Amino acid sequence: MSNSLSSNDKKIVVVGGGTGSFMLLSALKNHTEQLSAVVNMADDGGSTGVLRDELGALPPGDVRQCLVALSDSPKIRDLFSYRFEEGTFGGHSFGNILLTALEKVSGSFSGAVETASEILRIKGQVIPATLDDVRLKMEWPDESIVLRGECVIDAYKFRHDPRLADLSLEPSATANSAAIQAIEQADMVVVAPGDLYTSLGPLLVINGIGEALKNTKAKCVYVSNLVTKDGQTTDFTVSNHASEIERFVGAPFLDYVLYNQQEPAKDVAYKYKAEKAFLVKVDYDALSKAAYMGVAGDFLGEIASGHKADKFPVTRSLIRHDSEAIVQALISLC
Amino acid sequence: MSNSLSSNDKKIVVVGGGTGSFMLLSALKNHTEQLSAVVNMADDGGSTGVLRDELGALPPGDVRQCLVALSDSPKIRDLFSYRFEEGTFGGHSFGNILLTALEKVSGSFSGAVETASEILRIKGQVIPATLDDVRLKMEWPDESIVLRGECVIDAYKFRHDPRLADLSLEPSATANSAAIQAIEQADMVVVAPGDLYTSLGPLLVINGIGEALKNTKAKCVYVSNLVTKDGQTTDFTVSNHASEIERFVGAPFLDYVLYNQQEPAKDVAYKYKAEKAFLVKVDYDALSKAAYMGVAGDFLGEIASGHKADKFPVTRSLIRHDSEAIVQALISLC
Repeated sequence: MSNSLSSNDKKIVVVGGGTGSFMLLSALKNHTEQLSAVVNMADDGGSTGVLRDELGALPPGDVRQCLVALSDSPKIRDLFSYRFEEGTFGGHSFGNILLTALEKVSGSFSGAVETASEILRIKGQVIPATLDDVRLKMEWPDESIVLRGECVIDAYKFRHDPRLADLSLEPSATANSAAIQAIEQADMVVVAPGDLYTSLGPLLVINGIGEALKNTKAKCVYVSNLVTKDGQTTDFTVSNHASEIERFVGAPFLDYVLYNQQEPAKDVAYKYKAEKAFLVKVDYDALSKAAYMGVAGDFLGEIASGHKADKFPVTRSLIRHDSEAIVQALISLC
Repeated sequence: MSNSLSSNDKKIVVVGGGTGSFMLLSALKNHTEQLSAVVNMADDGGSTGVLRDELGALPPGDVRQCLVALSDSPKIRDLFSYRFEEGTFGGHSFGNILLTALEKVSGSFSGAVETASEILRIKGQVIPATLDDVRLKMEWPDESIVLRGECVIDAYKFRHDPRLADLSLEPSATANSAAIQAIEQADMVVVAPGDLYTSLGPLLVINGIGEALKNTKAKCVYVSNLVTKDGQTTDFTVSNHASEIERFVGAPFLDYVLYNQQEPAKDVAYKYKAEKAFLVKVDYDALSKAAYMGVAGDFLGEIASGHKADKFPVTRSLIRHDSEAIVQALISLC
């Protein structure tokens, strides 16, 4: 089994949205010098949505979270994560405002990310998955149902099986060449846990991302979600999640799927039952037949404390991954 | 006459508000390693005013300008100076938003200035003149007239002689100890050109600043304003300006007054006549009798180009100092 030292020279790319990538990047940055985050760019809710609508900015939210995760400066990290509580700016994340201002000043979102990376003194690299201005679309062709906008879809309880829906971007998006390059040259690509239809899907369906994932010689790992999303992935098993991810990409590409086998304490189970988030069930049978290898672990972390209600509320699961345990498992696969 | 090299080890403190301090600091930073700005904290207009009113922040505007002047990073300087043009943030300076967010995160305005100084990689030090939350008051006791708020006073055309008015802060302000220390330990203190009643006055009347200026062994220099302010300092001469500055401080403290003797080109004179700003007249007689020494120079710079109209318009004179010429004169007095 490798240790953290031997992973120092490995190129690891984390693919995902906000919270899941944040968790993995925060832990991985201490184990490799060559870490990149390829980030979802279809967010259109809350503070990010207002900045997109009013200023025509590209969505800063998920990129901000990844930048903060990789930052080496606690003070500036706190600044980026600060959310105004009242007045004109109430509910806006400072980091979002900064990325939008930088985009205006530098004339490009990638220029903005570059300068923000300097300000935050980040380890590694944050790469927007696309630089196209796109919105998410989810469509059930047989039902003539079309949902538009990540924020809308995120709040929706599906009436039909989402596995029968087409997920796409409007207009169609081309992958950022830096994202393709990072994936193709990686030793390991980790798909972070995240909402299937509003965080991972919108990234994986970008033209060019799937090809890169299929072509790369990197080991491709999906860190399975811990809990289901009410009304979207209700009753989804570990292999159901993995299948959807491979459907978005257009072909099997996963080498490993990491999943949690640990049972939570009863009081914890009670708490997340209240928010109708249930532990993703492990379907050992399906996993044993899959083309990828299932890797079980004790991945339950401590419960996160509740967060303040704000103007743009974000629903996040109370239950968390033990990021250090996951990172140790990832490194052993490197 | 000294040259720029010999001024490297001199401690120079620039006292003032926004634009005048910006001009001097931008030029002085290349001539001394020990430069400080002591900054007016009574601003309550425009973007700054909204942040004060809505978020209870201390006024970031003048501090922001001084930070930008001392910054060594062109990209981040542009970011700080960026003003949003539309939407929720329309008219707000990004640097103001940043300082306010930092004040909230760090819990103090001085903490905010410290972290902003790191982000901007500034040469030297920016010191808020006071950390008290104060508003400017101008009162003509004989006329029972009271004006409140820097922004209000700034827009006012005085009906009575301002030299008969009391300028004070509500509640009364105590100087930031770092400001007193900088003034007391300086080799030279430069009072920057600026609006007498809304930029220099509000700073000089802070309890403790006057004492420090009287006690310091530093050479004290006032760089005289170039033009009068319509309805406020109409017809004021160089010595009139200097007298008001010493009145705010409460005693004579100036060693030198630098003033411009250069005539502008006719087309320039025409342009600033249109905004009712006239060159401050040099009253050689009064200057020759003053306790300070008048130092004449050719200090006219190029005309500034017009600035964009924005939500919080700032009226600034079109005519500018030649900052390099002034700095050379200052250094020769060091």
